[in-house]
Amino acid sequence: MIHEIIVFSKKRDEMIDITPKIREIIQKENVREGLAVIFSTHTTAGITINENADPDVQIDFLRRLDETYPWNMAADRHEEGNSAAHLKASTVGASQSILIKDGNLALGTWQGIYFCEFDGPRRRKCYVKVIKD
Amino acid sequence: MIHEIIVFSKKRDEMIDITPKIREIIQKENVREGLAVIFSTHTTAGITINENADPDVQIDFLRRLDETYPWNMAADRHEEGNSAAHLKASTVGASQSILIKDGNLALGTWQGIYFCEFDGPRRRKCYVKVIKD
Amino acid sequence: MIHEIIVFSKKRDEMIDITPKIREIIQKENVREGLAVIFSTHTTAGITINENADPDVQIDFLRRLDETYPWNMAADRHEEGNSAAHLKASTVGASQSILIKDGNLALGTWQGIYFCEFDGPRRRKCYVKVIKD
Repeated sequence: MIHEIIVFSKKRDEMIDITPKIREIIQKENVREGLAVIFSTHTTAGITINENADPDVQIDFLRRLDETYPWNMAADRHEEGNSAAHLKASTVGASQSILIKDGNLALGTWQGIYFCEFDGPRRRKCYVKVIKD
Repeated sequence: MIHEIIVFSKKRDEMIDITPKIREIIQKENVREGLAVIFSTHTTAGITINENADPDVQIDFLRRLDETYPWNMAADRHEEGNSAAHLKASTVGASQSILIKDGNLALGTWQGIYFCEFDGPRRRKCYVKVIKD
Repeated sequence: MIHEIIVFSKKRDEMIDITPKIREIIQKENVREGLAVIFSTHTTAGITINENADPDVQIDFLRRLDETYPWNMAADRHEEGNSAAHLKASTVGASQSILIKDGNLALGTWQGIYFCEFDGPRRRKCYVKVIKD
């Protein structure tokens, strides 16, 4: 069974914490040990695992990524003008795989799972699959 | 069982759509629900998921990645001179995991699976494994 | 069952080859075919697959990543001052999935699995799970 998570982004670049939604799915599936795969179905958004404590990390994260892949580049050919978002999406990746241990996500203390919007605001969809061990 | 995909790249930097080959493997395996893992066996090439519609996205993608990790850098020590390709490979990643739903890849409308060549032209090999649910 | 790997990094930026430790786990589990997932529990460190032959690749890799995401940036807001490490961690990724074939890791000739330290020296922990086929 594949679960769907719907995310509504509010900015062009935004990191949205989806950890509670993944936890909910794992509890619903009543799985003790296994693997959770979270997959973004978009090419201008991705999934990453990063700090869940200081929100300034997200601000620095998105600003630095934007410096590396600036929105406007004269050389870009893609007519939609969002090539930067495609680069950022592949940099963080379309999916993350997280182990399940004793019925919970085996994350480190400071890790959260983030949906990364790079061309918002938009309605976005992620898939979540739990593979039981 | 592990399937092999052989890719022949024609340029130094190239994104090659391998989605049809993965679809073929899933049909052959006759799997309804599960997970497909695609793995590049190389350190100067990777796998990514990105736009399958406008080919200009790939042109911008490879050009911008090359601006971030330029081929020639005086400070590089690696004698083969392809350190940029090693950086690009780790940025997009060696593998991608894609969910299988109703006997097909659970991709978004605009998503394709790409073998990313960063030090071609070469003969390249990928592994594909289907984990049934 | 989830295995733990403890790594002691000695530098701020360091790539530590953990391939032998993963091989050991696979032999212990006595698995012939399957998938190994290696997961870093940290937000300033990650896991990547890259060249295992010339150590100069690692030197170029860490230097170029540092040029893309410099340690000191006046605009950074995160008080710990390690925002660059958070960017690098998400670029290489928190985990890698590797296929298992005939009782061994299905890696290419030049591929090794690296724990990537971006804010060391520290004591670090990775999880390894083997999914049997």
